[in-house]
Amino acid sequence: MVRVGVCLSGCGFLDGAEIHESVITLLALDRAGAEAVCFAPDAEQMHVVNHASGEVAEGERRNVLVESARIARGRIRDAAEVQAAELDALVFPGGYGAAKNLSDFAVNGPACAVHPEVARLLRDIAEAGKPLGVICIAPAVCAAVLREVAPKVELTIGSDAGTAEALEKMGARHVVCPAGEIHVDEGRNVISTPAYMLDSRISEVATGIEKLVAKLIERCGAGLTPAG
Amino acid sequence: MVRVGVCLSGCGFLDGAEIHESVITLLALDRAGAEAVCFAPDAEQMHVVNHASGEVAEGERRNVLVESARIARGRIRDAAEVQAAELDALVFPGGYGAAKNLSDFAVNGPACAVHPEVARLLRDIAEAGKPLGVICIAPAVCAAVLREVAPKVELTIGSDAGTAEALEKMGARHVVCPAGEIHVDEGRNVISTPAYMLDSRISEVATGIEKLVAKLIERCGAGLTPAG
Repeated sequence: MVRVGVCLSGCGFLDGAEIHESVITLLALDRAGAEAVCFAPDAEQMHVVNHASGEVAEGERRNVLVESARIARGRIRDAAEVQAAELDALVFPGGYGAAKNLSDFAVNGPACAVHPEVARLLRDIAEAGKPLGVICIAPAVCAAVLREVAPKVELTIGSDAGTAEALEKMGARHVVCPAGEIHVDEGRNVISTPAYMLDSRISEVATGIEKLVAKLIERCGAGLTPAG
Repeated sequence: MVRVGVCLSGCGFLDGAEIHESVITLLALDRAGAEAVCFAPDAEQMHVVNHASGEVAEGERRNVLVESARIARGRIRDAAEVQAAELDALVFPGGYGAAKNLSDFAVNGPACAVHPEVARLLRDIAEAGKPLGVICIAPAVCAAVLREVAPKVELTIGSDAGTAEALEKMGARHVVCPAGEIHVDEGRNVISTPAYMLDSRISEVATGIEKLVAKLIERCGAGLTPAG
């Protein structure tokens, strides 16, 4: 059975993992007969956002791992305990959590740092030539880590000019991609889909993620040469 | 365009709405070309459960509407403001939130009370003969409300004997139903699927909910006689 790591970043698109993207990823993996290994960093969220008002809930504190467990129905591991050797592939759903908790891209842009355990795992997967799927804003995390390992990695975040420019400043190549589609960097074994980076319907987001997961599974075992 | 109310009860299966069931419902509705109208009661959750440990987080407080907004990506309404007349059908995803926040079934069993705005809307939908979909443990809410309006409503919560007995004590008829399937009470226009009440995979849960949503849409406009 193919084992695919799913890196979560909380629970809710404004301060954690995008819930629709995460669930659709888990469903697509199960339908493909793959096992999902959910994990998250054991760290405090950058902040908590009230998703009804859109405002920061001052004084509230939540843990990324504990909130991610809501999406994973309790079956969640600490990123620090997950090794690339046990996975055939790795996927990052989006949501601001990727830019606020897995990295500080939301604050520091191209100068961002990535959580060390997440960076280690992503780098190890890329160096092993295993397929990597990045959804929505998660390509920012990928670009930040791969600027050392696999510069010029091709990624899409849809069509947002500012974010695309930030990715290129980190050494990636941005490719415009419509809703419901994926971009595949064949050489580096990286697949991306814009999902909610575009103003999409949930069904368009699902179509893109289903294509991404199908391609990811297809490439498991195929990508045996190191990335870059 | 068919408009379907989706009643959420928080965000996370141990203290709110079951996230997978909620997202799969929203996706199936969008794929069917229906508009989802997400709403939740503006009330405090019974408690907050740490989904990594499974234990109650003592001292933490969260609001059902505010947490439900995470699943609805901010597009959420207060149950008090939603009228049956604006909806063609109504769906309740499961999760303990249905038994802890929408009702107190988790504490009081067959003697449970239902949040008054949720009860009003569910009763109005049933009395208008509009289709009602109840997922996982949500049939308990349905049985509690319909014991007055439509006694002997046929419902499934899968095969759990204790919960089935509690439903029957509220005047419903429990029907055993396997994973991935639905039960349809034709006369009362109520469709149910066991989802995570059984120890199911996410793909089985999705198959059941997809069938439930398809049947619900099919019956919109068909159920013009009052329930009961």
